[in-house]
Amino acid sequence: MATGADEFGEIARLFRPLAGGAPGAFDLLDDAAIVPQRPGFDLVATKDAVVEGVHTPIGERPDLIARKLVRVNLSDLAAKGAEPFAAFLAISWPPAYGAAERESFATGLGRDLKAFGVALLGGDTVATPGPLTASLTALGWVPRGAMVRRHGARAGDLVAVSGTIGDGVLGLAAAQGRLDDPWLADRYRLPTPRLDLRAELLAGAHAAADVSDGLVADVGHLAHASGVAITLDLERLPLSTAAGSWLATQPDRTAALIRLATGGDDYEVVAALPSPPSAAFTVIGAVADGAGVTVRLDGRPVEAGAGGWTHI
Amino acid sequence: MATGADEFGEIARLFRPLAGGAPGAFDLLDDAAIVPQRPGFDLVATKDAVVEGVHTPIGERPDLIARKLVRVNLSDLAAKGAEPFAAFLAISWPPAYGAAERESFATGLGRDLKAFGVALLGGDTVATPGPLTASLTALGWVPRGAMVRRHGARAGDLVAVSGTIGDGVLGLAAAQGRLDDPWLADRYRLPTPRLDLRAELLAGAHAAADVSDGLVADVGHLAHASGVAITLDLERLPLSTAAGSWLATQPDRTAALIRLATGGDDYEVVAALPSPPSAAFTVIGAVADGAGVTVRLDGRPVEAGAGGWTHI
Repeated sequence: MATGADEFGEIARLFRPLAGGAPGAFDLLDDAAIVPQRPGFDLVATKDAVVEGVHTPIGERPDLIARKLVRVNLSDLAAKGAEPFAAFLAISWPPAYGAAERESFATGLGRDLKAFGVALLGGDTVATPGPLTASLTALGWVPRGAMVRRHGARAGDLVAVSGTIGDGVLGLAAAQGRLDDPWLADRYRLPTPRLDLRAELLAGAHAAADVSDGLVADVGHLAHASGVAITLDLERLPLSTAAGSWLATQPDRTAALIRLATGGDDYEVVAALPSPPSAAFTVIGAVADGAGVTVRLDGRPVEAGAGGWTHI
Repeated sequence: MATGADEFGEIARLFRPLAGGAPGAFDLLDDAAIVPQRPGFDLVATKDAVVEGVHTPIGERPDLIARKLVRVNLSDLAAKGAEPFAAFLAISWPPAYGAAERESFATGLGRDLKAFGVALLGGDTVATPGPLTASLTALGWVPRGAMVRRHGARAGDLVAVSGTIGDGVLGLAAAQGRLDDPWLADRYRLPTPRLDLRAELLAGAHAAADVSDGLVADVGHLAHASGVAITLDLERLPLSTAAGSWLATQPDRTAALIRLATGGDDYEVVAALPSPPSAAFTVIGAVADGAGVTVRLDGRPVEAGAGGWTHI
């Protein structure tokens, strides 16, 4: 639907180049696309949406919204050990989006799709009286049966997280001007999906998820899906230099660490593994029989609240 | 992303039953799903979005919005000769959507997904300050190499359309209270994807598209994609009793027929075929060498304008 005469030309101009000549995309001229099948591999699919002013600052540059949309979706595939290759887009243009803004969005989208080796196979462009709203359906491959799931964590596993945690929530504050740190703001605006961890996750992880809602919440989902208990030790939280500097200025270290561990938008990967991981990860906890997440600081349980950022 | 604590419970309550136990859905507990592969078949995918107040009347019942979302997506698959089996949802809840409205949406979605044999494999729920915005990514199967495309129409083909044309645009008027006809309003609100045409399309169509933007526009896309010229004869337009009655009251028959042929939202299938189709179709035109669409009435060309409804 919604391919009126104007939209047809717009799709051709803005989005056809993003199909990259993929055979099943039919140059975005058809109602539907053919997704290739790959013997020996499973097709992994995820779909996340971004709303301007909810997931990005109000008035965010269109190209940056598009790039964040790509990255948050690929982050989900990264946590599953999947290799992205294709995507579908649905985009609702607000009234303020004229030709320049639409072109900016398409340019940002194309830049990151290309950078991550993803072809645009299809989608829909519509108008909205509301804010820019976009969803991406991202597709990737994993060797058959090898997808790293949320369930699968076992008693005795180590819990480890990639990169650094807490930059997302501090980056949001920076993007909103409440904190003066351009590096953190960039980290929030353009998270990097951890596709570099694929081999290690496929070889060694019992379970994994990306850290989008907040480390404690995402570990909670992992514990719930796996039917196990997980203990997290906040003093082991890997922090960036910027987050470490921020922490040093906070009067209540416990509250500050909880904020970093529950803030979300980090787009790192948290995994349960039977053996110590590579230096890409930091061990921050352990899996045991039982249920729920216990957050500790220096060996003592602390109250981490509901455990995560919620967009609802 | 965006699976905060509240959303996690909401997904479990509202949407998990819609997964229908599909193995790759992991009970909607994971970041991603596994889409099955089917030897001997191609995986066909489409993605359409619906915005309340743009594609549905403002204040439309949530369950009806959800059902229309399912139906417009399955209409795309129907035109390709594909058999739907799975879908992904992205939904942005507006502030006015409390528990009752969300449940209504999920109930309508579940009702139609079940009716059409489609399992919900995943998706995302987010909040928006704007209107309800939802996109579905719908997946279907066609025998390998058999997808009916927009390109493929050849000189000498007949052009035929299923069902009746013009009920969509009249139904919109009825839904908005500008025309008093509940049957037409229902036809607009809940179009029926023509999945019943699959065998005939796969066996006999050179090209096809669904009639969503307006018959003339959709035929134009077909002509453009196929590199051919198409002539449409308006006097052959298949009309419902309701549309026929409306036409009889119009002072300008030509303008009225053009309105029906360009109004959109019919969700029928227009196809180019080498042989006369079954009674499910009405022949309305022909394919020749050349380019573009010529609309005629009683043998004389008429001006049909830009040729279609545009949501942009």
